[in-house]
Amino acid sequence: MFKEVKGHINTPKGFLAGGLHAGIKKKKKDLALIYTEAPANLAGVFTTNQVKAAPVLWNQEILHQGKAVHAVVINSGNANACTGVKGISDNAQMAKCVAEKLDCDAEEVLVASTGIIGLPLPMDVVEEGIKTLAGKITSKSLCGKNAAEAIMTTDTFSKEVCVEVMIKGEKITISGMSKGSGMIHPNMATMLSFVTTDANVAAEDLQALLAEINEDTYNMISVDGDTSTNDMVIVLANGAAMSEKLTKDDPDFSTFKKAFLYVHQTLAKLIVKDGEGASKLIEVTVTGAESTKDAKKIVKSVLTSSLVKTAFFGEDANWGRILCAAGYAGVNFDPLKVGLSFSSDKGSLELLSAGEPVAFSEALASEVLSEKEIYVHLSLGTGHAKAVGWGCDLSYEYVKINGDYRT
Amino acid sequence: MFKEVKGHINTPKGFLAGGLHAGIKKKKKDLALIYTEAPANLAGVFTTNQVKAAPVLWNQEILHQGKAVHAVVINSGNANACTGVKGISDNAQMAKCVAEKLDCDAEEVLVASTGIIGLPLPMDVVEEGIKTLAGKITSKSLCGKNAAEAIMTTDTFSKEVCVEVMIKGEKITISGMSKGSGMIHPNMATMLSFVTTDANVAAEDLQALLAEINEDTYNMISVDGDTSTNDMVIVLANGAAMSEKLTKDDPDFSTFKKAFLYVHQTLAKLIVKDGEGASKLIEVTVTGAESTKDAKKIVKSVLTSSLVKTAFFGEDANWGRILCAAGYAGVNFDPLKVGLSFSSDKGSLELLSAGEPVAFSEALASEVLSEKEIYVHLSLGTGHAKAVGWGCDLSYEYVKINGDYRT
Repeated sequence: MFKEVKGHINTPKGFLAGGLHAGIKKKKKDLALIYTEAPANLAGVFTTNQVKAAPVLWNQEILHQGKAVHAVVINSGNANACTGVKGISDNAQMAKCVAEKLDCDAEEVLVASTGIIGLPLPMDVVEEGIKTLAGKITSKSLCGKNAAEAIMTTDTFSKEVCVEVMIKGEKITISGMSKGSGMIHPNMATMLSFVTTDANVAAEDLQALLAEINEDTYNMISVDGDTSTNDMVIVLANGAAMSEKLTKDDPDFSTFKKAFLYVHQTLAKLIVKDGEGASKLIEVTVTGAESTKDAKKIVKSVLTSSLVKTAFFGEDANWGRILCAAGYAGVNFDPLKVGLSFSSDKGSLELLSAGEPVAFSEALASEVLSEKEIYVHLSLGTGHAKAVGWGCDLSYEYVKINGDYRT
Repeated sequence: MFKEVKGHINTPKGFLAGGLHAGIKKKKKDLALIYTEAPANLAGVFTTNQVKAAPVLWNQEILHQGKAVHAVVINSGNANACTGVKGISDNAQMAKCVAEKLDCDAEEVLVASTGIIGLPLPMDVVEEGIKTLAGKITSKSLCGKNAAEAIMTTDTFSKEVCVEVMIKGEKITISGMSKGSGMIHPNMATMLSFVTTDANVAAEDLQALLAEINEDTYNMISVDGDTSTNDMVIVLANGAAMSEKLTKDDPDFSTFKKAFLYVHQTLAKLIVKDGEGASKLIEVTVTGAESTKDAKKIVKSVLTSSLVKTAFFGEDANWGRILCAAGYAGVNFDPLKVGLSFSSDKGSLELLSAGEPVAFSEALASEVLSEKEIYVHLSLGTGHAKAVGWGCDLSYEYVKINGDYRT
């Protein structure tokens, strides 16, 4: 139906992108820009945190107005959150600065920031950087790879995915980039994720689709249980590869949806794989629940438990902690019906069957848990609903990274 | 009104207690017994975890029947949780074994277990241990100090408190012991805590009082966000020091309440102080909330945040993480009205005033945060309700302890 190809955020037709070091961080790239000359339909989901960073408020207003957009400017190294009135005006100035250089309205420019909370943006270097970046972007001398690098904070690798799919007889491309890797917890949108496509999708259909798939992708990952002040997922669709419009009633819409879901799910999983200090990706599946909502609650409770996470870091089959975390998820179930197993590429391990512990080989347990991707399956035996989510372990490195993040 | 004195769980009149090494653990004491010849009125609060260990279910049933009790037997090293039908019968056997030796009914014996989840109890050594302990306890050759040591798991010190207070002209004693120090998170009762008193308090008044103070003590602490399968707080009042009954309508009841609250609050704070891997006690106060419920939600959200906890471990004044954690607590407030300060014995640090960051000296910040007890004060500027809670930092040691707890 669709195929994954090499590509960047600027691979879909009509998109340009770049990134550079402006001077917010000491050395690494810290400023990225995405631009489409043809106006793009917009979809976005944002953090539910009561404390929202200035760029979140700005973008929500633009989405609310229902306008098409031309650009997204993103800085790393500073979250522009808890920065009071100055933060709001700095954010507007970033959009204005981009708009002037790219000849569009400031309200057609989205803004995203990530990094330290509570410090004012160094606006002199930010504005200088925007001017340089916007000046170069139309000459196409920049590339999307730099953009993906410029949005990183504690990420250890940049996160990109690109797929091609045939829609209504025309080849369209969907491309995405994300940054993690701390302050990540499933609650509406999470962290920063940007997706571009040259498909011609109506804004309202795009927004409905994003809201739907968000629930099964970004909202089902957790690194540390902390929902950020700056989270957002932004989708731009400029239609440059399609002559005809694609609407949700079109038979090809489901094909687009599959490719779109794949892009977001890939980004979501890359984020947890690169979770701060993470050495393992943990996939938790809950089956036999009374409702999807119940299954999701338990998945999230298990993924968020510090005790479960440290046990996986220690490669210790301390499965009781998973039952414990399921038990405080706020879902009714009968412990005497529960089944539990771990698996990885090295094999499978049954631990609990209908509430009774199953004797297992410690040697096989060590073998199974030594892998980098671990699959946990918890069956409740109550109903027929299921859910899947992704998290990571909790390591010494996590404590180290966050013990002196700021200084 | 009351004074703290040296004492153990067997200091109140008519109580006997002891602890020994039965063989559940390799070397350390692992079995404790509390006994009162005069029947004691009982109060208890228990974990809200859906997965409840066998002893929790047993004690809840005894409390429900409203009977007075004679003994509590506690083992560490094995939680008797997720142990299926065998676990339930092993638990009943523990009570029966105590009852036979101490000449009371099995339904007058409470049971508590703590340790690894999912393994069957080694009943041969448990029964042997109970017989030895119960045989010695009436000879008074044992002591309460051993009991406090025998309920420890990853605790680094035993937790005891004892107060004397004059009630209706008679000196009564209230004594308590607790164990922490992981799988601790405010949600109804937490961990194991036992309190004895020779006050003559009616069972229903004792239960109502315990339920009330539980909300401001054990329910306001967190070590790791994990609500255990075995949590319980048990209070035994045998009336041995009072000729007259004390009821909630008595003018002296408020004096008893103050002493009783002090005992539980002291135990709760000792538990977080000795939280797994903890190097600091963090006290969070939220003021200016619309309701106490709102204030408590924010206190708990801040205390549970891994990012806040690692920042304190690193002695880093990364205050934005506190705002972030407050923001996802599920409480409405206006970020532009919020104030925040840190303090310790080394001084005070204002960080945010009416939503605007306050410039502070990094030297003073390092000084303030170098202390072992840190006070965080968040003012919301919305209403007049407040709440206080206690937690600890998240250290390398926490990861180490929990990476290979089982093996």
